[in-house]
Amino acid sequence: MARASTRRSGQGGSLGARVAQAEMRAANMGLILRHLRSGDGWSRARLASETGLSRATVSSVVAELAERGLVREGQLVREGAVGRPGQTVSLDGARVAGIGLEISVNQAVLTAVTLAGTVIREAVTPLDAARLDVNAVLDRVAAMAQRSIDSLRGSDVEVVGVTLSPPGIIDYSAGSLRFAPNLGWRGVPLAAELAQRLGSSAPMIHLENDAKLAALAEHQLRASDGVHDLVHLTGEVGVGAGIIVDGRLLRGWSGFSGEVGHLPLGSPDVQCACGRRGCWETAVGIDGFLRLLDEGDQGEGDRARPLEDWLFEVEERARAGDRRTLAALAELAATLAPGLSILVDVLNPQMIVLGGYYAHFAEQLLPPVREHIEARRIDAGTAVTITTSTLGATASARGGALLALEGVFEDPSLVGARA
Amino acid sequence: MARASTRRSGQGGSLGARVAQAEMRAANMGLILRHLRSGDGWSRARLASETGLSRATVSSVVAELAERGLVREGQLVREGAVGRPGQTVSLDGARVAGIGLEISVNQAVLTAVTLAGTVIREAVTPLDAARLDVNAVLDRVAAMAQRSIDSLRGSDVEVVGVTLSPPGIIDYSAGSLRFAPNLGWRGVPLAAELAQRLGSSAPMIHLENDAKLAALAEHQLRASDGVHDLVHLTGEVGVGAGIIVDGRLLRGWSGFSGEVGHLPLGSPDVQCACGRRGCWETAVGIDGFLRLLDEGDQGEGDRARPLEDWLFEVEERARAGDRRTLAALAELAATLAPGLSILVDVLNPQMIVLGGYYAHFAEQLLPPVREHIEARRIDAGTAVTITTSTLGATASARGGALLALEGVFEDPSLVGARA
Repeated sequence: MARASTRRSGQGGSLGARVAQAEMRAANMGLILRHLRSGDGWSRARLASETGLSRATVSSVVAELAERGLVREGQLVREGAVGRPGQTVSLDGARVAGIGLEISVNQAVLTAVTLAGTVIREAVTPLDAARLDVNAVLDRVAAMAQRSIDSLRGSDVEVVGVTLSPPGIIDYSAGSLRFAPNLGWRGVPLAAELAQRLGSSAPMIHLENDAKLAALAEHQLRASDGVHDLVHLTGEVGVGAGIIVDGRLLRGWSGFSGEVGHLPLGSPDVQCACGRRGCWETAVGIDGFLRLLDEGDQGEGDRARPLEDWLFEVEERARAGDRRTLAALAELAATLAPGLSILVDVLNPQMIVLGGYYAHFAEQLLPPVREHIEARRIDAGTAVTITTSTLGATASARGGALLALEGVFEDPSLVGARA
Repeated sequence: MARASTRRSGQGGSLGARVAQAEMRAANMGLILRHLRSGDGWSRARLASETGLSRATVSSVVAELAERGLVREGQLVREGAVGRPGQTVSLDGARVAGIGLEISVNQAVLTAVTLAGTVIREAVTPLDAARLDVNAVLDRVAAMAQRSIDSLRGSDVEVVGVTLSPPGIIDYSAGSLRFAPNLGWRGVPLAAELAQRLGSSAPMIHLENDAKLAALAEHQLRASDGVHDLVHLTGEVGVGAGIIVDGRLLRGWSGFSGEVGHLPLGSPDVQCACGRRGCWETAVGIDGFLRLLDEGDQGEGDRARPLEDWLFEVEERARAGDRRTLAALAELAATLAPGLSILVDVLNPQMIVLGGYYAHFAEQLLPPVREHIEARRIDAGTAVTITTSTLGATASARGGALLALEGVFEDPSLVGARA
């Protein structure tokens, strides 16, 4: 905020000064837009007093945001006892969207969310990423993204960013994938590859880990209930945690936080794709669950079949009281609980959300997991709510769309003025 | 910042307005003081441009900070090409101190640090806290604090706050100790008890966990090397982690983060003071190390003997190549490593600092621990520096003194004007 107001003094006629003026204008737009994010309907007077900008600056910045379709006028309000009534300003952004694109081992998911927070597009495509060549996978997901961008453009919605989420470790500075243990990919310049496929008018491309993005999406849902310290555990073939501390994503020093899938909590007899033995995800990831169910063929032979269909079947069997299914779920809960307990001891979150395939089995997993954590509790103050995600398989893609929109709150000039 | 500058407009003659004016003044003092914290010697012009305050306000706020002994004038600088040269302003605060007071199972430590960051007092007293009544312990540490406050006052140094650090879990909202497993204390209103013993002129009293404070002290030392994501593992009778993420202490939702001493990484045969079995600290805490050394008597019979003396003896034996000592240290390293590895997987810190008694055995512990972590690494990007603390047994008390000073940066009006 201080920066935006400092820049106001740096005006003049030279090129340098005009650049500084444009930067200042973008910074002030961002400042106003971030304020509008919380709560509905702000008066210009309140915006001026909260941001420290002058009334005149607020009015002109609001006008510019309105031209870009980012804010709209609301109802008439009288500010104070005297003076003309004014119209409130609210976040709009129905015509600005971010896209999240998740590649997992079994499928690709695309979600588009508007700046106003509405999901306007969601697509899930089976994709046997482990068997396809990396270029073939990129061709397919780029085509998915291109179709959505084109079709949204047809409805006058501008896509300002795409977040691509591979199931692996990202090199944030290089914009590349370091290593995806379950796909065997190493050193793939994903951002550049996707940008090239989307052509010259490609929106900004970000990379982020699926587990971290799912946590962002989950936090967006839970923030209104005052939950700002949560861990989201994504259960897919790989298992990872997304950690939100005080409302912010904990990325770790080099982006490797939450790599809990490789905690040494599995059987030392089982080899993990990462090269080690006994990793937690070999027991609690989807392949581990298949082993427990003795249904190895789903994992090995039938990747093209939509994973969700199969999960609904298993869910049905559990609900019908099938003994083998219930025994497998009991064993899964018993292996999940110690890992969650570690996350409680280290992070002391307010809430743990089980996402990915775990969300199908709330009824069978939550009671024993809660009991284990409760029994290990040192003190009443460490209470933690354990629940399942309601976002389904699209959590990470949704988080990716939210992340892609963050740039607009930093610099609203990314969005062009509307004709 | 916006708040401080917003308040400037709320001036007037009524009582409410005068209160608002005083608050605004305190907020502006804090704003300037926090800026002075980074780097040495700021011109008033730069302070004005960075804070958004007017030159006149900066000058009057600096004058008020100088009256309180918090800033001093530095050398003459010419600001820009024209105008009179001015004097730079620097953080002073040599006459303002915070006190950290750590109660551990074996000893009490008091450290006083000035606002300028200088340690001006340090005292370690053997204290058999587990055998003494809680009131007797409080009497002793209150007397330690009172002697320091009085003696510092005699040298014209004002103590603005005391942070008391018990070896247990704090109820932050109540200002009390919930539970100290190794002392058997439960529900002790420590802040009120200490305040009562220090009388009506007691400085502000804070409570914080020893492991978290040690991490604060460690971060203060390492910040200039660009280390802002670190985990400090405190090895005493209890074991706990202090977690710094992006330069800030991760407290957890209810202050219970870093309770890693109770991770299930010890032998299930050993009972922990917390009531569970197999807690990590039963193996890697001091009592666990004593068991490894087969020197149970130090733990059981000789608490009044300064722990540090005994540790130096063990250190000597290790350096002399004593086989039993080296075998115990090898076993300690082997039990430490898996827990540290968990912290790496969950948090991805840049650095892990082994503090408490571990710091005596860098030579024996670091190589095998580093090797274990290195062998489990998924990728080059997860490299972590593992080192030992140089702060000795006073790390937590030092962190407590730093925490006690934080209030001054928030509200410098806590410090009275000097006669």
